[in-house]
Amino acid sequence: MSVAYLNGTYLPLDEARISPLDRGFLFADGIYEVAAVIDGKLVDSASHLARLERSTRAIGIDLPLSLEEIEAVQKQLVVRNGLTEGLVYLQVTRGADTTRDFIPPAGLQPTMFLFVQAKPFLDIPAVHDGIAVATVPDLRWARRDIKSVGLLAQAMAKQAAREAGAQEAWMVEDGFVTEGASSTAFIVTEEGIVTRSYSQSVLAGCTGAAIGALAQEKGLALIRRSFTVAEAKQAKEAFITSASTLCQSVVHIDGSKIGDGRPGPVAMRLRALYIEFARATGV
Amino acid sequence: MSVAYLNGTYLPLDEARISPLDRGFLFADGIYEVAAVIDGKLVDSASHLARLERSTRAIGIDLPLSLEEIEAVQKQLVVRNGLTEGLVYLQVTRGADTTRDFIPPAGLQPTMFLFVQAKPFLDIPAVHDGIAVATVPDLRWARRDIKSVGLLAQAMAKQAAREAGAQEAWMVEDGFVTEGASSTAFIVTEEGIVTRSYSQSVLAGCTGAAIGALAQEKGLALIRRSFTVAEAKQAKEAFITSASTLCQSVVHIDGSKIGDGRPGPVAMRLRALYIEFARATGV
Repeated sequence: MSVAYLNGTYLPLDEARISPLDRGFLFADGIYEVAAVIDGKLVDSASHLARLERSTRAIGIDLPLSLEEIEAVQKQLVVRNGLTEGLVYLQVTRGADTTRDFIPPAGLQPTMFLFVQAKPFLDIPAVHDGIAVATVPDLRWARRDIKSVGLLAQAMAKQAAREAGAQEAWMVEDGFVTEGASSTAFIVTEEGIVTRSYSQSVLAGCTGAAIGALAQEKGLALIRRSFTVAEAKQAKEAFITSASTLCQSVVHIDGSKIGDGRPGPVAMRLRALYIEFARATGV
Repeated sequence: MSVAYLNGTYLPLDEARISPLDRGFLFADGIYEVAAVIDGKLVDSASHLARLERSTRAIGIDLPLSLEEIEAVQKQLVVRNGLTEGLVYLQVTRGADTTRDFIPPAGLQPTMFLFVQAKPFLDIPAVHDGIAVATVPDLRWARRDIKSVGLLAQAMAKQAAREAGAQEAWMVEDGFVTEGASSTAFIVTEEGIVTRSYSQSVLAGCTGAAIGALAQEKGLALIRRSFTVAEAKQAKEAFITSASTLCQSVVHIDGSKIGDGRPGPVAMRLRALYIEFARATGV
């Protein structure tokens, strides 16, 4: 059985229990992060921890551990579970009340929960075949820069994509793609690599940021601007980035073939660069 | 200690425990309802249960109990806790997974959690003094007709209201008041009683609907249209409705006095009518 971490204690995941009065359960009053593990090391950890700090600060949750202590817990979970390839999930909420009130009482102790998922993602069919994306209306709240656990809209988007035979949903607002339900959306055009600018309308993707930087280091142009579904369908390539997919080619959007319908060279090169970066900098 | 209900079992509230892999905790993948109790009876119960069914159906959660069985649990909790005046809170989520995936596995057993809050609301200062409201931008998702537990935006709105010295937040979108953070917003003008039309932009308030119907029975005009903050500040009266406030006069909006700054006759009459209705129809 997988070993998890809950509020200072390491324990079997299936024994972990919280109060239903936890504000994470009652109000989605919590933040999460997902970090990839490759070769038993945390990928791009500082970037994820910095975003955790930004998100929790944005909603006024005081992290119960320092970022160094959190990373130590993550590493412990990797070791205790013998994890070589997969994910470490982390969630922190404002804590459990003794009743239910929108305004939290003073002195709540935040809840911190972590567990791992052994999940191969380096050599899977989706990498070689590419994935299909379905577009859906973006129903989410206005503060998507905060990585909150209020994910029902994303879950609905994923479900709609699944029912359309796709592996990811791209959410669309005012005619433009905002991002994937659990990934950052990119297209490759004559200009270079195109992805949306940072704002409250999208989550600042850690993996996407690293891949954008790697692209620029290699002399590829990175253009931060919005794009439409129609433009994406005409792009040379399309791809998504996230901790759990790294960089994956999108070969169909709403049934339209992108390029020749096979993963393109830019996405494949960026994926390789990112894995190299991940291996070189893992902790 | 208060007696709660969790997945078929009555137990002390402080002993209730769920898995942190519950989709309510990980994804806010759940629905809630709050019913008032007056004189030990559930107020307007059929309306709340019908909305519970609508919300759960909208996101594809199968209720684990029939509406009749749910009402029986609510009544049991009222009896077991000796509750005469207060609230019964109910939450149903898609259930606990054994890992975390946006797409739920088949066969999940929904989680159902209920508990009571003894809370006097019939004779409290807010009734006689009225309350202050602060306006905030409406940050919520697009499906506010679904009463989901994704309530972080509402919690942030309530916190902002508290910091502005107000007891409720009115959320504003495109210049118009949508609704309160946990209530329906009304104003009284020369036309009659004005409140927003039903759509995906607002929750269909059970208490507000009943009060609207009572007003019409008494010959008061009910106009369903949007109104601005500026119009609300010039209104003869303003008030909120909800299960936990019933009908409460708003006497200040962003520091501007409404009418003479005291609860107005229309709101007070509607409150009295609603309490009479609640007592006559409680179950």
